[in-house]
Amino acid sequence: MSAQILDGNATAKAILNDLIAEVSRLSEQTGKRPVLATVIVGDDPASHTYVKMKVNRCRKVGIEPRQITLPAESSTEQVVSEVRKLSEDDSVDGILVQHPAPAQVDEKQVFEAIDPDKDVDGVTAGSLAAMAFKEQGFRSATPGGIMRLFEEYGIELAGRHTIVVGRSRILGIPMGLLLLAENATVTYCHSKTVDLKDHVSQADIVVAAAGQPGLIAGDWIKTGAVVADAGYADNAGDVEFDVAADRAAWITPVPGGVGPMTIACLLEQTVESHRRRHGLD
Amino acid sequence: MSAQILDGNATAKAILNDLIAEVSRLSEQTGKRPVLATVIVGDDPASHTYVKMKVNRCRKVGIEPRQITLPAESSTEQVVSEVRKLSEDDSVDGILVQHPAPAQVDEKQVFEAIDPDKDVDGVTAGSLAAMAFKEQGFRSATPGGIMRLFEEYGIELAGRHTIVVGRSRILGIPMGLLLLAENATVTYCHSKTVDLKDHVSQADIVVAAAGQPGLIAGDWIKTGAVVADAGYADNAGDVEFDVAADRAAWITPVPGGVGPMTIACLLEQTVESHRRRHGLD
Repeated sequence: MSAQILDGNATAKAILNDLIAEVSRLSEQTGKRPVLATVIVGDDPASHTYVKMKVNRCRKVGIEPRQITLPAESSTEQVVSEVRKLSEDDSVDGILVQHPAPAQVDEKQVFEAIDPDKDVDGVTAGSLAAMAFKEQGFRSATPGGIMRLFEEYGIELAGRHTIVVGRSRILGIPMGLLLLAENATVTYCHSKTVDLKDHVSQADIVVAAAGQPGLIAGDWIKTGAVVADAGYADNAGDVEFDVAADRAAWITPVPGGVGPMTIACLLEQTVESHRRRHGLD
Repeated sequence: MSAQILDGNATAKAILNDLIAEVSRLSEQTGKRPVLATVIVGDDPASHTYVKMKVNRCRKVGIEPRQITLPAESSTEQVVSEVRKLSEDDSVDGILVQHPAPAQVDEKQVFEAIDPDKDVDGVTAGSLAAMAFKEQGFRSATPGGIMRLFEEYGIELAGRHTIVVGRSRILGIPMGLLLLAENATVTYCHSKTVDLKDHVSQADIVVAAAGQPGLIAGDWIKTGAVVADAGYADNAGDVEFDVAADRAAWITPVPGGVGPMTIACLLEQTVESHRRRHGLD
């Protein structure tokens, strides 16, 4: 392969190390630690595994994790009421509602119960607008993590033609808006796109966010392009890695690329929320 | 020219005629008429002309216009307070804050004081999310008007490659999200885009929303494409009309294309708000 690796593991580790120092510095000023509350509904094993991983990372950097587990049969009203309590609880800096909630829970209503100032996972309408219009607010964690990765590796975005493959609520759509706010030319492709190959092969930067392993053939990638693969189905990427890595200038591995950056972004935003809410520099 | 005209004047007129009948039908059920409140800050003559035009159209279809004029030196807090009153006033169905407000007024704060259920001009974060995720809510009036024009002329959007030139808060950005929600492949181009010509010449549908007369040369348009020109600078379009009209299959004139559709969309959404708020079919 000729591409250089956008190393999410190493970058996330460096961010977490910086956060350890930052949290310790802030705590000395306030006597408090940032608090991230996670609401999880039901007992989906994958969700509990993710939450456990987040809790461990929180502890590692000095963020206090709080976990609220609600029964699988909870109504929308019950979940909304728990989220509201956290929104009003002055000790809480960030609120994360673990996705997916059981089918009877209206996720949109639950998300909108999150105080936008505590929406460190970037799921509210207010956060969407903040991303679109580059205003103060928080980013959806996965696209936010990808932007951080681009930043750390000095990937130029302005004026470059970027393709986002996928248009989900907390990945594809905010991803495109964040790139647009950084002056990229942005094309959204998706399941109804005609001739995906044609679009991909023209792009300077490809963000794959479809969750369909192998959807993007390696030889579609333009020579010298940048590839960020947020594929998440069965831990396999959307992009055929080996062939793509022979053509790209930069590429994320799966796993070890986008995945660890998502948690890093979440924790970084939790600390940022703590700083803002306490008026700290 | 070979293109057929996307006639905004005729389409808007037909929509307004339908609204006359609809408002009369609704009023018979409720004894009430839909109310659109407009807040205008200062005495910019162009803004007052626009508002006057909107007031006249309201009266024509049977919507009751209310106009709140605030002094040019109003603070953000004063404007927000007026908008809040309208949000809480049960007799008001729609709220429009005339753009632009004087520089000392924070438009974002003012917009967010609009009850999302009355945001018939589609300027709040909640409306942006509703457009992005195809949820119940209102569309920004100009992109909403363009979508209505496409609908009325049966312009197919799904799977087609659409370019939006421009990325403003209430025009370019929501336009792209609305097209994406209708399954178009969407490219956002803007002032930082490299080789705009290349992008435009590939598009099946071009929405010009830059406000730069003549930015898009007519011979960039692909044969058989659809062109909607939301150009608004000095009443001149972004697209070189004569040459474009020889190549396109459908094109909007300027004036008489997108402009009248903006008001039609605003009034249609005001009536829709009245229907929803009173639980009417």
